[in-house]
Amino acid sequence: MTPHLDSFFKQVDGLSESFIDRLRKAVAIPSISAQDEHRNDVVRMAQFLAAELKNLGAEVELRPLGKQPGKEHLDLPPVIIARYGNDTSKRTILVYGHYDVQPALKDDGWASDPFELTIDEKGRMYGRGSTDDKGPVLGWLNVIEAHQKAGVELPVNLLCCFEGMEEYGSEGLDEFIQAESKAFFKDADAVCISDNYWLGTKKPCLTYGLRGCNYYSVSVSGPGQDLHSGVFGGSAHEPMTDLVAILSKLVDSQGNILIPGIMDLVAPATEEERALYSGISYTVNNLHESLGSETGIHSTKEKILMARWRYPSLSIHGIEGAFSAPGAKTVIPAKAIGKFSIRTVPNMESEDVNRLVFNHIKAEFAKLDTKNKLDVWLQHDGKWWVANPKHWNFNAASKAVRQVFGVDPDMTREGGR
Amino acid sequence: MTPHLDSFFKQVDGLSESFIDRLRKAVAIPSISAQDEHRNDVVRMAQFLAAELKNLGAEVELRPLGKQPGKEHLDLPPVIIARYGNDTSKRTILVYGHYDVQPALKDDGWASDPFELTIDEKGRMYGRGSTDDKGPVLGWLNVIEAHQKAGVELPVNLLCCFEGMEEYGSEGLDEFIQAESKAFFKDADAVCISDNYWLGTKKPCLTYGLRGCNYYSVSVSGPGQDLHSGVFGGSAHEPMTDLVAILSKLVDSQGNILIPGIMDLVAPATEEERALYSGISYTVNNLHESLGSETGIHSTKEKILMARWRYPSLSIHGIEGAFSAPGAKTVIPAKAIGKFSIRTVPNMESEDVNRLVFNHIKAEFAKLDTKNKLDVWLQHDGKWWVANPKHWNFNAASKAVRQVFGVDPDMTREGGR
Repeated sequence: MTPHLDSFFKQVDGLSESFIDRLRKAVAIPSISAQDEHRNDVVRMAQFLAAELKNLGAEVELRPLGKQPGKEHLDLPPVIIARYGNDTSKRTILVYGHYDVQPALKDDGWASDPFELTIDEKGRMYGRGSTDDKGPVLGWLNVIEAHQKAGVELPVNLLCCFEGMEEYGSEGLDEFIQAESKAFFKDADAVCISDNYWLGTKKPCLTYGLRGCNYYSVSVSGPGQDLHSGVFGGSAHEPMTDLVAILSKLVDSQGNILIPGIMDLVAPATEEERALYSGISYTVNNLHESLGSETGIHSTKEKILMARWRYPSLSIHGIEGAFSAPGAKTVIPAKAIGKFSIRTVPNMESEDVNRLVFNHIKAEFAKLDTKNKLDVWLQHDGKWWVANPKHWNFNAASKAVRQVFGVDPDMTREGGR
Repeated sequence: MTPHLDSFFKQVDGLSESFIDRLRKAVAIPSISAQDEHRNDVVRMAQFLAAELKNLGAEVELRPLGKQPGKEHLDLPPVIIARYGNDTSKRTILVYGHYDVQPALKDDGWASDPFELTIDEKGRMYGRGSTDDKGPVLGWLNVIEAHQKAGVELPVNLLCCFEGMEEYGSEGLDEFIQAESKAFFKDADAVCISDNYWLGTKKPCLTYGLRGCNYYSVSVSGPGQDLHSGVFGGSAHEPMTDLVAILSKLVDSQGNILIPGIMDLVAPATEEERALYSGISYTVNNLHESLGSETGIHSTKEKILMARWRYPSLSIHGIEGAFSAPGAKTVIPAKAIGKFSIRTVPNMESEDVNRLVFNHIKAEFAKLDTKNKLDVWLQHDGKWWVANPKHWNFNAASKAVRQVFGVDPDMTREGGR
């Protein structure tokens, strides 16, 4: 099927020890972005990656992102941008990955030193960042190297964007991407993010969508200060009573959102889309395993996955300002703030969702006939994303998965970050 | 009206400077029961009080209460028990008070040093404990002293019970009272507690009742661990959704308890009882002042006071286990525990209340058709108390108030401790 790639695959096999050695070096650098004392290691990791890319002939730049917000004594680690290939007759793929890792200690339950790549008898490799995300990032370097050694030309131009703050909120990256959108990134024909997980353990997946998130606060306030329930219980409108009433009108126990109009915003599922679900490697048991219980709402794979990926959901996260410690406290909180979020999907526009949420809550609050005061606001929103899973970029990736793994990949969306 | 007391009142006036000086000494001892480092000061305060009582001729004992539970390196401060008078032809009154205080720092907003009695130009005295409860305790000593110096016999025998842990839950006192009920306390014909506030600022009050408190926890659990709302929102039964639904079925915004049968337990208000309310010095404005807002439910003095004193109320205090900090967190809590309490009144027996609460919550939970798990339990209960406001002890106190203040006292209950 792809005879011109035979020499490439031979190189991949022949180079596997050196690929593993490259990963070993990367894992050994504790590039923990969340810990100030490891900032130099994060920078060291950037320099290691940049040097490897240069060795392979890429044009590489380390771009500074300025000081870390809130920690102005620290420089943010640089973004590595690199270009490999300049052939205007080829497509240009922008690949994203990150070279920082989360903290890890042997005491956290690791069977081996997290910063030493360890290979077990089945050939499985353990080491902080080997999956998330040093391994996938190095995959791009390995691909370039194997093409070079096989004498096979890379069929695309590559642009790389590797950052060092992903595990700490990708500080500074948004501004950088905005600024470079018409500059370094302008040639990109498609984007490939190599920072994701398989749905199960058997098949690779290609992700073509992500739910968005509108996060809300609703506050009810009344008394000038917290009150004692012995003294004021029964004679004051209690903010918690009103807040609980409001929160109970948002979603039912079956996960149905009770806000009128929300479901009308949702794009209907097409037959073509439905057809994608049946082949996906997932079972109700997979859900129960990840829940750690059998408290799932739906009884078929399709319903579970559609609930997770392509329908909105509403979760109540908690209440700020009320008694939240163990034990007993007879307080009437003067002000309580409920937090909830709606996972958004195509075609829910944030402003439409906000308007429906605000109107519904205000209408329900009015029914309570309370003298307390209501406030409801959006804390933040993040837009949903969905791509066409038949796009040439996904087709190419599917072919590659079939070639290497012998199976079609699961075409997945994600429920939310 | 009471000519035989003229010499007594003269002594009270003449001794006022020395009474104030006694209070000054007491306030200067920082007998803070909540702070380990002040435990010696609490004991010092006990010794000061005991010495003053002995000087007046009382039989005094300092009774140890053992180690402080949970802080076994600390001895609880002693209970002071004292007897003044042994005349079997007289009634014997047991007086209770406490000699410990809450913490106080100038930084908390005090205009003067909290542990130095300070008198302003209007003669008002400021100092930690001057009202709660060193002043009232010393009042009993002052009464004895003024009788002695006036050569007027005290008309009753006095038993004293002064404790040093009231501001920290009266640790150890219950057991002590139980143990002494048939011993030191056996002669008591009536009890007088000198640790209370006036309802307003114009009239003393005599308190003849107190609401009880049944404090409940209701927990809903399901998943084996906290979940991410992006991944599981829409496909898992969420404990917070179910808990909020349950909590919304307990009480409405007008303060009406929604648990069937609860109001049937409440003793009906008699005409005699209703008659007590109209004369009480209280206004809707008083409520608004103490609320710090105009969010009261009722619009007449009688309704407000009856809601506070003689009808039950239900308050939702908060939720344990859910997100309670400022900001946004997209967690689905695996288990959330709601806390609420019911203020109980005659004739609500705790077991009856519990049964109605448990049945109602279980029935409402069953309606939700959720796979999550419910648990509801009583954290603790404290029984309501009500006395006959026409009892001779209240009549005597009323006469005394009329004598000294020229007004009838407000006959009050309290909403709860």
